[in-house]
Amino acid sequence: MDKQKVRINGERLKNTIEAFADFGRTENNGVTRLALSDMDIKVRKHFQSECEKLGMTVVTDDMANMYATLPGVDNDQLPVVVGSHLDSVEKGGRFDGVLGVLTGLEVVRTIVDHGIKPQVPIVVANITNEEGARFEPAMMSSGVLSGRFDKATMLKSADTDGTTFEEALKNSGFEGKKQNRLTNAAAFLELHIEQGPVLEKESLQVGAVEGVVGMVNYEIEVSGDSNHAGTTPMEMRKDALFAANNLITEIREKMNKLDDQLVFTIGRMNIKPNIHTVIPNKVVFTIEARHRDAQTIRQVEEIVQGLPETSRKEKCEVKVTKQWDRDTVWFDENLVNSLEQSIKNIGYSYKRMVSGAGHDAQFIATYIPSAMIFVPSVNGKSHAEDELTSWEDCENGFNVVLQTVLDLTTK
Amino acid sequence: MDKQKVRINGERLKNTIEAFADFGRTENNGVTRLALSDMDIKVRKHFQSECEKLGMTVVTDDMANMYATLPGVDNDQLPVVVGSHLDSVEKGGRFDGVLGVLTGLEVVRTIVDHGIKPQVPIVVANITNEEGARFEPAMMSSGVLSGRFDKATMLKSADTDGTTFEEALKNSGFEGKKQNRLTNAAAFLELHIEQGPVLEKESLQVGAVEGVVGMVNYEIEVSGDSNHAGTTPMEMRKDALFAANNLITEIREKMNKLDDQLVFTIGRMNIKPNIHTVIPNKVVFTIEARHRDAQTIRQVEEIVQGLPETSRKEKCEVKVTKQWDRDTVWFDENLVNSLEQSIKNIGYSYKRMVSGAGHDAQFIATYIPSAMIFVPSVNGKSHAEDELTSWEDCENGFNVVLQTVLDLTTK
Repeated sequence: MDKQKVRINGERLKNTIEAFADFGRTENNGVTRLALSDMDIKVRKHFQSECEKLGMTVVTDDMANMYATLPGVDNDQLPVVVGSHLDSVEKGGRFDGVLGVLTGLEVVRTIVDHGIKPQVPIVVANITNEEGARFEPAMMSSGVLSGRFDKATMLKSADTDGTTFEEALKNSGFEGKKQNRLTNAAAFLELHIEQGPVLEKESLQVGAVEGVVGMVNYEIEVSGDSNHAGTTPMEMRKDALFAANNLITEIREKMNKLDDQLVFTIGRMNIKPNIHTVIPNKVVFTIEARHRDAQTIRQVEEIVQGLPETSRKEKCEVKVTKQWDRDTVWFDENLVNSLEQSIKNIGYSYKRMVSGAGHDAQFIATYIPSAMIFVPSVNGKSHAEDELTSWEDCENGFNVVLQTVLDLTTK
Repeated sequence: MDKQKVRINGERLKNTIEAFADFGRTENNGVTRLALSDMDIKVRKHFQSECEKLGMTVVTDDMANMYATLPGVDNDQLPVVVGSHLDSVEKGGRFDGVLGVLTGLEVVRTIVDHGIKPQVPIVVANITNEEGARFEPAMMSSGVLSGRFDKATMLKSADTDGTTFEEALKNSGFEGKKQNRLTNAAAFLELHIEQGPVLEKESLQVGAVEGVVGMVNYEIEVSGDSNHAGTTPMEMRKDALFAANNLITEIREKMNKLDDQLVFTIGRMNIKPNIHTVIPNKVVFTIEARHRDAQTIRQVEEIVQGLPETSRKEKCEVKVTKQWDRDTVWFDENLVNSLEQSIKNIGYSYKRMVSGAGHDAQFIATYIPSAMIFVPSVNGKSHAEDELTSWEDCENGFNVVLQTVLDLTTK
């Protein structure tokens, strides 16, 4: 058998995705499956059962991360791990996260179907609470695995009903031992939808992801004076909204000059008192910017931190607070090359790219050689019920992972 | 007795204002006295009792407007009316509205003190629900009196607890007969705090108000596309917030060229989904503009209505909806001249001015000769607990009304 000719079963893949989407499917064909919710627990049991049918052993660790292991010829060797997350946001899609777990499942099914004996164990992982939609922060468990987040702090994270992550963990039936944690592996591969429009716009079939871009988050507070909109002459006003308007214009003009790969967003903006006949006395808005190069992010920070100085002509007070940042994470060069080679062997159109969104792989990458593969998102949509990746695009991505896993685990 | 020398008793005036502020006084020395609330009902009873002590007769009409009448020598003649409103906004001040009612009370007290017999009746009026803070709209009852608002519609207006104005009216004990409505008068005089900074900034003691400026209100809806802030390249975005920012800049640049008496405000602005990592797909903001000249308001409307056309370079859709407008109301020229003559006789510094805020007098003016007098607002503040007018400024304003009433009602 020429293992390079082995392919995922497209029909089964489609049925598998739809079967998993039944756990929390919404009216508009999306999915609501918040971390450790009833639906998440049901889909975990289904996942476990499907893995066990293949002869895999399923264990969980102290963060309820699930690891389904297909034994290899030599089980003292480090495993190859394929994984992502089964949780979703409220009214999310059928592809985000789950696709990366199902890649692992379908890869193992295909290997078993073909009677292939991997040299090393293959682990399919479901990482708990990637979305952070029920319990903040996002990428909670990969953060704990990599030592980036403190477990005790995470346990206290509570949902809007006041249930803590610790309680949800205990009640889930999936809390396991700390010794089961993923501490080492030969490779961690995560397939994910792009969540952006680039692959679709450029008519590419897959993306070999080299890293996750660094980002920086600021909150800007503009304080003026709230007065009656009818009785206060323009020159006597301290209008926080007009001042914010000037600041945003300044930010945009300066940012646009930096680099066309830079993305920046003012996603949240709150006005007070927010009454149509009252001059706003407070506007608070966020700005986040992402770029692969630390130097560009530094330039962004200079612009934002300089606002109180550059906006001195404003009659309002401007306060800039840095919320958080993260550096660009570069994936394992060899593993990205392996993915690229698989893509070339099959003949898919592709590009090497960086991810603008965060993923578990970026934390895992800090201690295990990791890489990601992207499949196209129709209209770049994600975290929405109309999130869509064509069955063909799913299949292409799965085949890339299959070929890479075969490459890494067979002679 | 030289009636031109008669003055308000400043000490009593101060005590009266503070006594009325006791009905609903807040922790920070403001007032919460929503229309027909328990506090409003209590202050109404107090007002009635104070009027009756002076030999006045108090009646109410079907909107619970109160009319306290001091008989004149000839009670077949049209009365002179002095009035405003006793209701306040939530956490409002001790001066807005109540001052105009207390002017009437103190004028009558002073007349009675001095044994002056007016030729015609003097009516002190408390107009129900000027603020519209509990039951929308503002200036509800003067709107009904003047035929501008439909009473049946007003009766259905409900507060946030679901209580309708009709229910509140019935339970107040102040619902009277429609035949008691103010249908005609020789003059309607309303003293009010300026609610703006002009008198204070120009060091003037009073303002003779010639009219209330016209205004226009629009809502502008900008619709874009909501995408992931990290994964969507800038040139592929339809960012509703950035588009709104451009529109606001355009509005400001064009409006600033019109006339320096024009005031315009973007007081309310809501962003969706308002999440810092998501590109906004919707921004809705209001714009209101006020100017005495209809021509300038027309220019404002051309600018706002032209936005969908002038902003065609934006990738977002722009929808402009006119909410409502009102024309400038000019007060009775003779009455404004009478007020001005009284001011000059006493020797106060003053200016003739227009009101940027709406008042009951602007509706009453449509069928009764009306005019207003303004007293300075410290820092232009109103509808706030720190709303302030000095006792001296209150006294000055009251003296102007006293002299004008004497001028109109005595030989």
